[in-house]
Amino acid sequence: MASNGSSTSTTDVNLTKPLRCIVKLGGAAITCKNDLEKVNEENLEIVCSQLRQAMISSEKVVGMDWSKRPGSSDTCGSVDGLEDQLRADSNNFIVVHGAGSFGHFHASKSGVLKGGLDQPLVKAGLVATRISVGILNLEIVRALAREGIPSIGMPPFCGWSTSVGNIAAVNLSVVAKAIESGFIPVLHGDAVLDDLQGCTLLSGDVIIRHLAAHMKPEYVVFLTDVFGVYDCPPTEPNAILLREIAVGEDGSWSVTKPTLQDMNKKVEITVAAHDATGGMVTKISEAAMIAKLGIDVYIVKAGTTHSLKALSGELRDNIPDDWLGTVIRFSR
Amino acid sequence: MASNGSSTSTTDVNLTKPLRCIVKLGGAAITCKNDLEKVNEENLEIVCSQLRQAMISSEKVVGMDWSKRPGSSDTCGSVDGLEDQLRADSNNFIVVHGAGSFGHFHASKSGVLKGGLDQPLVKAGLVATRISVGILNLEIVRALAREGIPSIGMPPFCGWSTSVGNIAAVNLSVVAKAIESGFIPVLHGDAVLDDLQGCTLLSGDVIIRHLAAHMKPEYVVFLTDVFGVYDCPPTEPNAILLREIAVGEDGSWSVTKPTLQDMNKKVEITVAAHDATGGMVTKISEAAMIAKLGIDVYIVKAGTTHSLKALSGELRDNIPDDWLGTVIRFSR
Repeated sequence: MASNGSSTSTTDVNLTKPLRCIVKLGGAAITCKNDLEKVNEENLEIVCSQLRQAMISSEKVVGMDWSKRPGSSDTCGSVDGLEDQLRADSNNFIVVHGAGSFGHFHASKSGVLKGGLDQPLVKAGLVATRISVGILNLEIVRALAREGIPSIGMPPFCGWSTSVGNIAAVNLSVVAKAIESGFIPVLHGDAVLDDLQGCTLLSGDVIIRHLAAHMKPEYVVFLTDVFGVYDCPPTEPNAILLREIAVGEDGSWSVTKPTLQDMNKKVEITVAAHDATGGMVTKISEAAMIAKLGIDVYIVKAGTTHSLKALSGELRDNIPDDWLGTVIRFSR
Repeated sequence: MASNGSSTSTTDVNLTKPLRCIVKLGGAAITCKNDLEKVNEENLEIVCSQLRQAMISSEKVVGMDWSKRPGSSDTCGSVDGLEDQLRADSNNFIVVHGAGSFGHFHASKSGVLKGGLDQPLVKAGLVATRISVGILNLEIVRALAREGIPSIGMPPFCGWSTSVGNIAAVNLSVVAKAIESGFIPVLHGDAVLDDLQGCTLLSGDVIIRHLAAHMKPEYVVFLTDVFGVYDCPPTEPNAILLREIAVGEDGSWSVTKPTLQDMNKKVEITVAAHDATGGMVTKISEAAMIAKLGIDVYIVKAGTTHSLKALSGELRDNIPDDWLGTVIRFSR
C-alpha cells in the first residue's frame, strides 16, 4: 500500500498537460445577492455553457448529471449514444466558486472566521456554513455536468487547513490527480479547521492564489457581476473601468490604462477610493500576487462576449480595443 | 508551512479520546430501495434521533442545519439561545452510509466499477454517480445536523484511491482531525480514482473495515432493513435469525447461536445458502475481518429499540435475550 503522495504548500505540482486556466465564479455572478440561498440559474447556465465552449473542442453536449431535479420525477440526462461519442479533447481547468448568498449569513452570525470551536455557536455555525456552501457546490457541479463538463466537487474542508487564517496544509496531489484523470475540480470558499484558532473561513480568492502559485495556470479569470475593476463604486455615474493594471516585481500595482490623463480626472486613484467599492483593494491585491508570478489575470463580467473571450484564452496575445474588462499583468 | 501529515493505510491513528463507534447507515435502511433517488425520510429521522441519543449526553436538540429546505422559503434552524447552551459532552463517532437507490443506477449503467476512463460513458458515469451519492450525502448530513449532530460530509473521492479495487491511499489524518475538533465525519460509498484501471467503486463496507483497522473503534454497528443476518433470505417463512457468529484467529466464522440443534434443521448453513440472500456472505466476511481485530460488530434493524441499544454501547457487556440482531465477535 502506497502513500497518498500529498504535497505541502511549498511543493509545486507538475501536470502532464499544463493547466490552462483557473476560473473563479464570483458569488455575486452566480447567486442572487440579496436573496438567501438562491442560485442565479440563468447566469449560471450561461457561465457553464461558456465554460464548455472554452474547455471542450466538441460541439456536442453530453449531459453528466443523471439525477432527478427537485420538483421533477424525471432524471435530466440520458446515457444513450454515449458509447459512440467522439472522444473530445478537453483543456485542463480548475473551477473555484464563491459563496454569494450561501454561507455568508451562517458564517457571520456564528463567528466561524475568528474560530473558537469550544463555543457551541461557532461549532454549529461551521456545520451550518458547510451545509449551505455544500448545497451551492452541488448545484454548480450539476450545472457544469449538464453542459457535459466532467466536474468533481472537492470541498476544501477535506484536505485544506490553516494556521491563524494562513494556509498551513493542502493536499494538492488530490486536485492534480483528478485533473490528470480528465476531470474538472470544483472548489469553493469554505469553513476549514485552523491549527491555532480551531476554525476559520478560507476564501475562494485565497484558494485560487495558492493553486495558481503551485499549479501555474496559463491565465486566471475572475467572473463577476460588473465589467471589471472601477476607480470608484461602479454604481456611481462617473465610475471609470480600469482596463489594465500593471504589477511590479515588488508586488506594487498601478493603473496603466486608462492613464490619468485619459481619465481627465484630477484625483489619483487612491487605495481609499478603491476601498469604497467593498474590498476591491483586497481583490486587486490577490490578483496582483497572481500576476506577479507572470500569470495574466482577467476580471470580467460573467455571461458576456467579453467573458467568453477571456475564458477561451483569446486575450493572451492581444486585447482588442472593444474588450471590456480589467487585465492585471506583470510588468518588469 | 507544514505538511498535512497524511497517514498511509499502514499507519494507525491515535485519537486523544478513543473512537466509540463506526456506524453504517445501510442504503436499504435510509433510502426507498425501489424508488430512484428517494430518501426514506421517516427512517432517516428516527436513525438520526437515535444517533443523537447515543452520541450526545444533552437532551436538548440544537439544530445545525440553517439552510432552506426544498419547497420552503423558511430556514430550519435558529441560532437563538445557542450561546447559553450547555457544552454537552459527545462521543466520537464516524458515520458511513451506503448508496441505496442513489448512485447504483448511474454506476451500473456506465460500468464505473471496472474502470476505463478513456471511455466517455465511464467518465460521464463517474460524474453522474458522484452527483447522485453527493445528493444523498448532503441529505444525510443535513438530517444529522437537524438533530444537533455536528456532521461533516467527507466524500471519499477526495483523499481515498485504490489499486485494482484495493485501497491504495487514504488520508486518515483528515478524518482524525475532524473528530479531534469535535465533529462527526460522514463518509459514503463512492466512485474513486484507481491507479491501474482509472476508477472504481469503493463500498461503504470496505471503508468501514479500513477505518476500523486503523482507528480501533470500541464497536461497529451496521443498520439494515432486516433484524440481522439470516440463514436464508429473510422473506422466506422459515428464515432463522443468526444471533451470534464467532470469528476465529484465521478469519473463519461459524454460527454459535442458535446452535444447529436449536434450529432443528437438517441442513448446515452453507455459503451457498447465504449467497442467496444477496451478498450476505460478503457482508459477513467484511464484518468478520473487523471482529478479528477484537471489535464487536452488531448487525441490527434501523430505527428499533434494538438498534438504539447497539448504538448506545449497551450490548458490550451483556446481550439481553430479547435483543434482536446479529453479533459478530472474535472468539479465541
